[in-house]
Amino acid sequence: MHFKLAFIGYGTVGQGLTEILLEKKDMLEKKFDFQWTVVAISDTMKGSVYDENGLDMKKILDLVKAGKKLNEYPSGKKGMDSIETIKNTNANTIIEVTFTDVKTGEPALTHIKTALKAGKNVVSTNKGPVVKEVLNLLDLAEQNNVFYGFEGVVLAGTPVLNLAKYTLAGNKITGFKGILNGTTNYILTRMEEGTAYEDALKKAQELGYAEADPTGDVEGLDALGKVVILTNVVLGKKITWQDVERKGITEISKEDVEKAKAEGKRWKLIGSAEIQPNGSVKAKVWPEKLPLNDPLAGVGEAINALTFYTDELGPTTIVGPGAGRRETGFSLLIDLLNINRES
Amino acid sequence: MHFKLAFIGYGTVGQGLTEILLEKKDMLEKKFDFQWTVVAISDTMKGSVYDENGLDMKKILDLVKAGKKLNEYPSGKKGMDSIETIKNTNANTIIEVTFTDVKTGEPALTHIKTALKAGKNVVSTNKGPVVKEVLNLLDLAEQNNVFYGFEGVVLAGTPVLNLAKYTLAGNKITGFKGILNGTTNYILTRMEEGTAYEDALKKAQELGYAEADPTGDVEGLDALGKVVILTNVVLGKKITWQDVERKGITEISKEDVEKAKAEGKRWKLIGSAEIQPNGSVKAKVWPEKLPLNDPLAGVGEAINALTFYTDELGPTTIVGPGAGRRETGFSLLIDLLNINRES
Repeated sequence: MHFKLAFIGYGTVGQGLTEILLEKKDMLEKKFDFQWTVVAISDTMKGSVYDENGLDMKKILDLVKAGKKLNEYPSGKKGMDSIETIKNTNANTIIEVTFTDVKTGEPALTHIKTALKAGKNVVSTNKGPVVKEVLNLLDLAEQNNVFYGFEGVVLAGTPVLNLAKYTLAGNKITGFKGILNGTTNYILTRMEEGTAYEDALKKAQELGYAEADPTGDVEGLDALGKVVILTNVVLGKKITWQDVERKGITEISKEDVEKAKAEGKRWKLIGSAEIQPNGSVKAKVWPEKLPLNDPLAGVGEAINALTFYTDELGPTTIVGPGAGRRETGFSLLIDLLNINRES
Repeated sequence: MHFKLAFIGYGTVGQGLTEILLEKKDMLEKKFDFQWTVVAISDTMKGSVYDENGLDMKKILDLVKAGKKLNEYPSGKKGMDSIETIKNTNANTIIEVTFTDVKTGEPALTHIKTALKAGKNVVSTNKGPVVKEVLNLLDLAEQNNVFYGFEGVVLAGTPVLNLAKYTLAGNKITGFKGILNGTTNYILTRMEEGTAYEDALKKAQELGYAEADPTGDVEGLDALGKVVILTNVVLGKKITWQDVERKGITEISKEDVEKAKAEGKRWKLIGSAEIQPNGSVKAKVWPEKLPLNDPLAGVGEAINALTFYTDELGPTTIVGPGAGRRETGFSLLIDLLNINRES
């Protein structure tokens, strides 16, 4: 397939994908018959540019990395906003990577709906719209005979949604359990070595894992969003934020960690959901002491992992990165490769 | 797609697949537009039966489980041998699950070649043909515009080949490292608890994990075959048995295990291969002392695991079962679902 791409938002993730597309252009064409042209970019800060015949993405990267605006690109139409770019360009696939409010899901939610209604594929790393109304969006995509991909919203480039949908196809997945937040896992790994919570958090902030306000990570809100997404998408059960029991890691003391160690166990912040015999779902984010023979117990640092419970294979676990600019950019390529395979 | 299936060989794996196909018939049709009829079975011990309109597989399972021959099936043509069944029936897909010599790959190798040349898809759990000449067989499949699937030969139903081909698509995979043999991992797990090697082996034999002659497992030959397969198929590098350095677990003493434990490490029999800077491959099966923060270190009992080294995601690991009658039967369904998706 020949993708005519439009970026809505053009921050680090979009730039990461651009680098991958440029570096892998030949391989993608030879191995997957995957061709691409970027026809438009629209970003609230950087401006916008559209050329139906395609933009020179090396030039674009140079401009953006030099802190310049897209207006300085030597040709093409300037000044189209995001909605115009979605509706009034020849792009067949929209890459939605704007800076979005996780709670309202905006402006990504509006962008995604507009694109799907216009019969354009959407790939996006924005979590808000998925948490808020993933099943609606998937319906909308189906009605318009296009694809909505969001692999990156759970574990960045570690392809957990793909694993569930394609690689584990034929299994009934009845539940999952995972380390869904890298920051808290990094903090717990340091505490395991004897570092106090406050110092471990400080280190995580220095490394850029944790925000200045770390609430979203350490209180389990980030993991909770991922539990909602996985429950809706993989287990096929409609739940929202309110349906998930939640406790973060802030009450875990150095003594708790030492005590677990003495028992041959390790604290991990676990996001999980399980379909109950009556068909309902029990979902939670909670610190758990795992025995060392649990595949999740050995997963340290900022690495993430997810175990699916399946009827044919029993527990099946994937372990990989859960964040990162290039890894998250790569998740968009996974979605694009799926569109390519299915069309 | 409507699969018209012929089983060549009909032991526990074929029967396991039959159970899955019967139990999941409705789901497969609804979810994947996957329809199937078994038109023929040919087994050297159980006899053979062919009906171009399809066999009643519940009846067949009852017959076989009662220790009866296929001749007692009330209708259909009897007495066709495996080659006739492959060539002269209306089957479009051959399920090759005969009892086969791992070294020569026969009779599976002849069956697979015959089927591919006749323009029929093949799915098979036989390891011999894959170790011996997988690249030839894949070429032959491509020339005849059909599919040759063998997911089950590495880790039974844990979909490592699918993971590499579909879910990790877009990555360059530069190496792998895994626990590829359940029996030795079971033995090492028991030794970790203080059991002596001989007693752990005896227990593995009692549980049916290890054969009466355990050489294939404990000397690393089984894992070696899997290293050859993964190197050829996933890394795309042609190697054979002779190219793999090998050492089993028989020389690991209770003291070695204790010593590793004191160092915070664990012995695992690791199969690995890595593409070298000059393009050659270094492949081996060797006992390694892993630190506890290696995702493979936490994988105990008869469970298997495989880490792929990728350019975009770094190390990405999958953990799941590596054997079992139903799990291996399920691996054939994974291959059939791929054919269904691609056709």
